[in-house]
Amino acid sequence: MAISVDTFFLSPKAHGTLQAQIQQMIAEGILSGRFHVGEKLPSSRKLAIHLGISRITVTLAYTELLANDYLSSRGRSGYYVSDNAPVPPSYTPPEKSEDTVDWSKTIVRQFTGGDTPRKPQDWRDYKYPFIYGQADPSLFDHANWRLCALRALGQKDFAALTTDYFDQDDPLLIEYIARHTLPRRGITARPEEILITLGAQNALWLVTQILLNGDRKAAIEDPCYYTLRDQLTHSRCQIDAIAVDGDGLPPEQITDDTDVIFTTPSHQSPTTATMPMGRRRALLERARDIDAMIVEDDYEFEMSFLSAPSPALKSLDRDGRVVYVGSFSKSLFPGLRLGYLVGSEPFIRQARALRANVLRHPPGHIQRTVAYFLSLGHYDAQIRRTAKKLHQRRTVMEEAISAHGLTIAGHGVYGGSSIWMQADPSLDMASVARSLMPQSVLVEPGAPFFAAQNRQHNYYRLGYSSIAQNRIEPGLALLAAALQHP
Amino acid sequence: MAISVDTFFLSPKAHGTLQAQIQQMIAEGILSGRFHVGEKLPSSRKLAIHLGISRITVTLAYTELLANDYLSSRGRSGYYVSDNAPVPPSYTPPEKSEDTVDWSKTIVRQFTGGDTPRKPQDWRDYKYPFIYGQADPSLFDHANWRLCALRALGQKDFAALTTDYFDQDDPLLIEYIARHTLPRRGITARPEEILITLGAQNALWLVTQILLNGDRKAAIEDPCYYTLRDQLTHSRCQIDAIAVDGDGLPPEQITDDTDVIFTTPSHQSPTTATMPMGRRRALLERARDIDAMIVEDDYEFEMSFLSAPSPALKSLDRDGRVVYVGSFSKSLFPGLRLGYLVGSEPFIRQARALRANVLRHPPGHIQRTVAYFLSLGHYDAQIRRTAKKLHQRRTVMEEAISAHGLTIAGHGVYGGSSIWMQADPSLDMASVARSLMPQSVLVEPGAPFFAAQNRQHNYYRLGYSSIAQNRIEPGLALLAAALQHP
Repeated sequence: MAISVDTFFLSPKAHGTLQAQIQQMIAEGILSGRFHVGEKLPSSRKLAIHLGISRITVTLAYTELLANDYLSSRGRSGYYVSDNAPVPPSYTPPEKSEDTVDWSKTIVRQFTGGDTPRKPQDWRDYKYPFIYGQADPSLFDHANWRLCALRALGQKDFAALTTDYFDQDDPLLIEYIARHTLPRRGITARPEEILITLGAQNALWLVTQILLNGDRKAAIEDPCYYTLRDQLTHSRCQIDAIAVDGDGLPPEQITDDTDVIFTTPSHQSPTTATMPMGRRRALLERARDIDAMIVEDDYEFEMSFLSAPSPALKSLDRDGRVVYVGSFSKSLFPGLRLGYLVGSEPFIRQARALRANVLRHPPGHIQRTVAYFLSLGHYDAQIRRTAKKLHQRRTVMEEAISAHGLTIAGHGVYGGSSIWMQADPSLDMASVARSLMPQSVLVEPGAPFFAAQNRQHNYYRLGYSSIAQNRIEPGLALLAAALQHP
Repeated sequence: MAISVDTFFLSPKAHGTLQAQIQQMIAEGILSGRFHVGEKLPSSRKLAIHLGISRITVTLAYTELLANDYLSSRGRSGYYVSDNAPVPPSYTPPEKSEDTVDWSKTIVRQFTGGDTPRKPQDWRDYKYPFIYGQADPSLFDHANWRLCALRALGQKDFAALTTDYFDQDDPLLIEYIARHTLPRRGITARPEEILITLGAQNALWLVTQILLNGDRKAAIEDPCYYTLRDQLTHSRCQIDAIAVDGDGLPPEQITDDTDVIFTTPSHQSPTTATMPMGRRRALLERARDIDAMIVEDDYEFEMSFLSAPSPALKSLDRDGRVVYVGSFSKSLFPGLRLGYLVGSEPFIRQARALRANVLRHPPGHIQRTVAYFLSLGHYDAQIRRTAKKLHQRRTVMEEAISAHGLTIAGHGVYGGSSIWMQADPSLDMASVARSLMPQSVLVEPGAPFFAAQNRQHNYYRLGYSSIAQNRIEPGLALLAAALQHP
């Protein structure tokens, strides 16, 4: 039997080259059982005419499928589904029936329903996306990233790509972080004191598992990164949410029974406050006095375009009391999912064992790609280009904010990629944000950042890492109008 | 000041092109503070002669560094470290001091010290690596993997590469698994019933967190995959290790108070036993009778070169009682770290929330690359090529095992990539394995697979997924000699 040429059509939405699409259509037809062993494919000429593409494209696709043993060729008589082609399943899938499992009893731990809000996945379709922490194609050095990834895919790097590191990491990446990244934050660390994680969030999660349980108490900043609060809730520890001021977390507010202090000194999340050196020392002293650990989330320190960043808390730590969390997700792109933990060896040993138990290790190819991107200098070059652009956007932001009479609640003196805003106390920014979506404006309501007992609804965050400069003013004009006539 | 040409040298161990190495040396020199703003680089001619390479290579490296603003050019007078080049840190790293933290008190949960053994990272240097579950460069379709990864790195896929999926996955990969992979195991599932994980181990971990706590009881196979036992230990549940027989887990041995049953019906790990259809039905019935969940780890079902695999337990499940764990790590390579969970929607909803909390999502680029590799048919082609090779190696294995009088304890009737072996009960295979390492033979002692109270020391596993066919016989000869004169 011959397979009809009409089975084939090119989808306008399809990805990849024409050759790849044809290959894919045929492979899927065989794997799904629509095309059977021995059936004849349309001639390359016929299929090319039918699809309106060049014949060589079809021939190349057929040749590739021949090599993979999906097709066989019988000389001049054409191509057939090969005898060795994969066989589709012979059993028919069962009817869908109702679960008899009582899920409310079977699920012993609930993880849904926390503070972490759902974000719009289609933010790229918005005209005025004041979204935070996403990748801007106009800022990301895609070409060099691609080259580094390609290099990490080479034969020479086969082991780095495919290997089972068990509880270890790519030595090249660890070495680079130890020798170049950390010294720029004033930190010295040996490889045994560094662990690669699936992003900063994963690093924070590892920390909560090792340092906290139902008998312990954590101090967090209020407002703070909501996912951290969800992670702490799952660890069942007691949570003390301490209101931050214009200099970040006030050390004197930390109670004596605190075991772990979570802080974001470079740019407080979300208020963007930078902790001055004096307070950093005071915080370390307070931690020493009450024998508490400090977890320093040093996110976004690279975005310091207004003035140089202060040395990390970790660089001032003489006790081994600070666990440092770094990330590449913000400075490169969030889909990368790569961060790192720095801490004393006994701590990192536990974090390594836990990570190995939960997921073994972050994929080797990604680790190696980042190692190349860093060591070739692309990373620093990208940071500088991005900072320059963010600086320009920040200037436009502040002008437009002032022109439209909006109120800034916090804007990092060192730079950053967002401004923390305040509306009239009578307003609920969640509903304002919703009302702006039909006008293609995306702003982030601030309420989820606050602890439940102290939730304030008139704050919001304006990110400027993904919005084009010329969209800033018109976007803020729409926002200002919505705030005046909510 | 000019930078001396003698600062530059090519390392014979360096990775990448000559151009990349030069770029790297200069960028690192600037970032580490060895090269200062305004310093003059050697002329391209001088540096080329010094390194013994072509001048154009040096010029290309300089041009790239110029574009990245590491260097500036002053017309014909040459290249200088740019005024805008990144500045090294100005503070000096502190002296290393002793921790004052009491780690035995500060660490509230220990994760080290489980059953999971350390594996030799340098196994590729062994001549006779009877190792299990690692990538063999001679079997892996590196070229097409590279093409798929490259395609996923293209401009068109920018969003898939960089995007923050939050708690979601790449829709292309989910669709392929739902439409093609699962039907081949007799399973139908909607996208809401599928979650991508960081490998099968991460999938199992998610399951233990949701279904088990200190009040629950899990039944596991004995012997079984040791990391699963470590994961269950951390969940604090009661563990019932049930001895498997030649057909895998005997359902009648599962006690009435069991809440979750972990099983590997395709190839019992590590004995390689395949559970017959009758027992699969009996197991499901037993689970229904005692209202227990079943977690089916369907690893290696693709390696069925001796006869077709049985339908998955999940395909027989009418109750929503089976959680299915699939993986690409074994069939592609372990460094990939990609697997998936299939289960009823209420369960997957919790697993999704937990995964989001712990690590958000597996990196988008990897998900998209696998989606392409699957949909273009490369995956199935690779499976077939691999199965053919494994079949040949298996034949050689069995011949050599028989010729040397070694004793098979279990060998999958459907195929697989390892044989479960038994030595004289007086022997400790851990010490035999150690004694074979200087002879470049790597075998895996079986003791860690057994539960502590029932640990047997005379078993071992022979993997044949990474050993060349002609190395099998000489390797087993060395093993046989060591077993005779331990």
